[in-house]
Amino acid sequence: MTDTDLGADAARWIHRLAQLSEPGPGVTRLPFTDQHRAVLPLLTELMEGAGLAVHLDAAGTLIGRREGPPGAPTLLMGSHQDSVRQGGAFDGAIGIVLPVLALGALGDTPLPFAVEVLAFADEEGVRFPTALMGPRVLAGTFDPAALDLADDGGTTLRAAMEGFGLDPDALPALRRDPAQILGWIECHIEQGPVLETEGEALGVVTAICGIERHMVRLTGEAAHAGTMPMALRRDALAGAAELTLAVEARAKATEGLLATVGALRVIPGLVNAVPGAVELTVEVRAPEDAVREAAGQALAETAQAIATARGLTLTMRRSYAQPATPCDPALQNALARAIRAEGGRGLRLASGATHDTSAMADLCPVAMLFLACRDGISHNPAEHCAPDTMARAIAALAATLPTLHRAP
Amino acid sequence: MTDTDLGADAARWIHRLAQLSEPGPGVTRLPFTDQHRAVLPLLTELMEGAGLAVHLDAAGTLIGRREGPPGAPTLLMGSHQDSVRQGGAFDGAIGIVLPVLALGALGDTPLPFAVEVLAFADEEGVRFPTALMGPRVLAGTFDPAALDLADDGGTTLRAAMEGFGLDPDALPALRRDPAQILGWIECHIEQGPVLETEGEALGVVTAICGIERHMVRLTGEAAHAGTMPMALRRDALAGAAELTLAVEARAKATEGLLATVGALRVIPGLVNAVPGAVELTVEVRAPEDAVREAAGQALAETAQAIATARGLTLTMRRSYAQPATPCDPALQNALARAIRAEGGRGLRLASGATHDTSAMADLCPVAMLFLACRDGISHNPAEHCAPDTMARAIAALAATLPTLHRAP
Repeated sequence: MTDTDLGADAARWIHRLAQLSEPGPGVTRLPFTDQHRAVLPLLTELMEGAGLAVHLDAAGTLIGRREGPPGAPTLLMGSHQDSVRQGGAFDGAIGIVLPVLALGALGDTPLPFAVEVLAFADEEGVRFPTALMGPRVLAGTFDPAALDLADDGGTTLRAAMEGFGLDPDALPALRRDPAQILGWIECHIEQGPVLETEGEALGVVTAICGIERHMVRLTGEAAHAGTMPMALRRDALAGAAELTLAVEARAKATEGLLATVGALRVIPGLVNAVPGAVELTVEVRAPEDAVREAAGQALAETAQAIATARGLTLTMRRSYAQPATPCDPALQNALARAIRAEGGRGLRLASGATHDTSAMADLCPVAMLFLACRDGISHNPAEHCAPDTMARAIAALAATLPTLHRAP
Repeated sequence: MTDTDLGADAARWIHRLAQLSEPGPGVTRLPFTDQHRAVLPLLTELMEGAGLAVHLDAAGTLIGRREGPPGAPTLLMGSHQDSVRQGGAFDGAIGIVLPVLALGALGDTPLPFAVEVLAFADEEGVRFPTALMGPRVLAGTFDPAALDLADDGGTTLRAAMEGFGLDPDALPALRRDPAQILGWIECHIEQGPVLETEGEALGVVTAICGIERHMVRLTGEAAHAGTMPMALRRDALAGAAELTLAVEARAKATEGLLATVGALRVIPGLVNAVPGAVELTVEVRAPEDAVREAAGQALAETAQAIATARGLTLTMRRSYAQPATPCDPALQNALARAIRAEGGRGLRLASGATHDTSAMADLCPVAMLFLACRDGISHNPAEHCAPDTMARAIAALAATLPTLHRAP
């Protein structure tokens, strides 16, 4: 089977998986639902076709295993089976399909380790106000209190799992011994435009960005736009505009930093009223925590300076913070070598979004292989990854695996 | 009676008028309602107490007339009896009360003209989607089609007037002959902070600002804030921020110009999404139409330049335009002289808001006397004008009237 055939093969599997969805546009497949139940036999068929031994663990993770030499460690690969509501066919799914097809392509080629491909139940966190249970259980970082969280219908995670035939009390026993795990590799669509813009099919992730979010309120004084002179105004929106441009300027001037004012609300928000208050969000992401935290602090100082200069009152609260997840340099290099061997540049880029990899990093060295996706679109029915891109990823994985060994 | 007594007298009348309101905070008195009906006897009592002959015209304007020499022209003064919902006690009311008290203070002092004080039914336009019927009827600019406009309850203006005992078909006959009108003077609270900031009780209005409003939409591309690099973003909010600051900067740099971004909406408006589109309003006011129109055009060019530089699409539509109303220089000077004679500076300032004066300008030379109001607050139950300020205004009017004569 040629690479091109494997790309078409991957596309067929992606297409079949995408049919297992709630009605409506795109793919809607939430954890511990009928759609999740329906996907298991299909993934089992896929995995068994590549010679893997398949079982479902107590977290709802479907695991296909290729045995290695006795006592050898295990390389983990995979991604999530679930989607956002009306999402795309490739997010998550390719991280399961491509490694299985790569193992199939390897055939009987001996590897000095076992390999498992994992199809996690829930990465998106759409149904329950928690996510990443599968990898967290493996890493020993799962908080059992999450089992009592309920979905919109009032069903707890515990009840949903039990209804799915799973035993939540068996979760602690799933914890893996880090000494027995070689590493984790996740294939994922980039969900952004960098690879497409660079004309590259594949890229190697350097780190998953840390994220912090700030809730900002600038309070001035609402006034009649016809009777309040410019010199006496305390216009909260003008202050917010300065801050918005400062956020953008900081990120443009800082390698790797992303910073965004995404939400902004004007009070009272009338054509003939000087804005009295503005509430806005500032989100900062960076692959290096020090860069992110320095930016967050600098922007808070900038916001205060703007407020002081304009006679506004500032409240700014960091509402969320999540550290960066660096990827393993040896795994990165192995993937990059395989990409270059196939004619690619082995481009490195950070991931701005969270992935199963974020939680797997608590267990073992991690790496991610990014695939270009059309127009950078994801979480949308229009999400698309070209068969040729998937073929290149399968080839890169198949070329990488024989080169891996336990780090010294 | 001393000036101070007249200020207290004005405050008592204002207080009595404010009682005639719908229930709730502040004053709510809409045209052609029970509250409007209730205010007429009180205003009649006020006017008759100053020796005026009172009648209600077909537009619902209560008119108190002081006769002049045979064949002499008439000076018109007044303002509106109505309020916004939960408005203040002084907006409109002082424009009726103060000239009546000034005429009372003049007593039998002969004037070479007749004087009428007018209490118009509807300036605020709160009940019907039209306003200023009273002055428009006098000026001959009233459009009878407005009689068919309905309030929220489905009652047309025509039906409301007929229910009030008025004959809408008699409106055309109310048109005044400009040759017989000396001019119009309206006393009004400033509804802004300029006089208070300057430490002046009274000011003379140079013009009622013209207004134009623009509906602006900047469209870029919504994107994931974690995966879209800064360099590839087409962030509509960052563009809107630049425009907001450009609007402010233009106004700060231009004498007399007020410019405001009052409403702004971000689409999709999520903490983790690069804004794909922003809709905002730009309002521009100036006492000189050329200044306002130049600003509107310059800001449209600025908006286009911002959009082009950022790869955004701009739509900008002028949704509203109203020319400025210049006040009569001779009347301005007469008022300023009277203010200076009482120890004031005779400060000149533009009015950013629309008034009955705006419509009266189509009939005759107009002027406005502005009174400082506390914290510049208006259209609010907290609206307040000090009795001493009102006393100074009464004195200024009483001093002005004997100095007026027909312009050559």
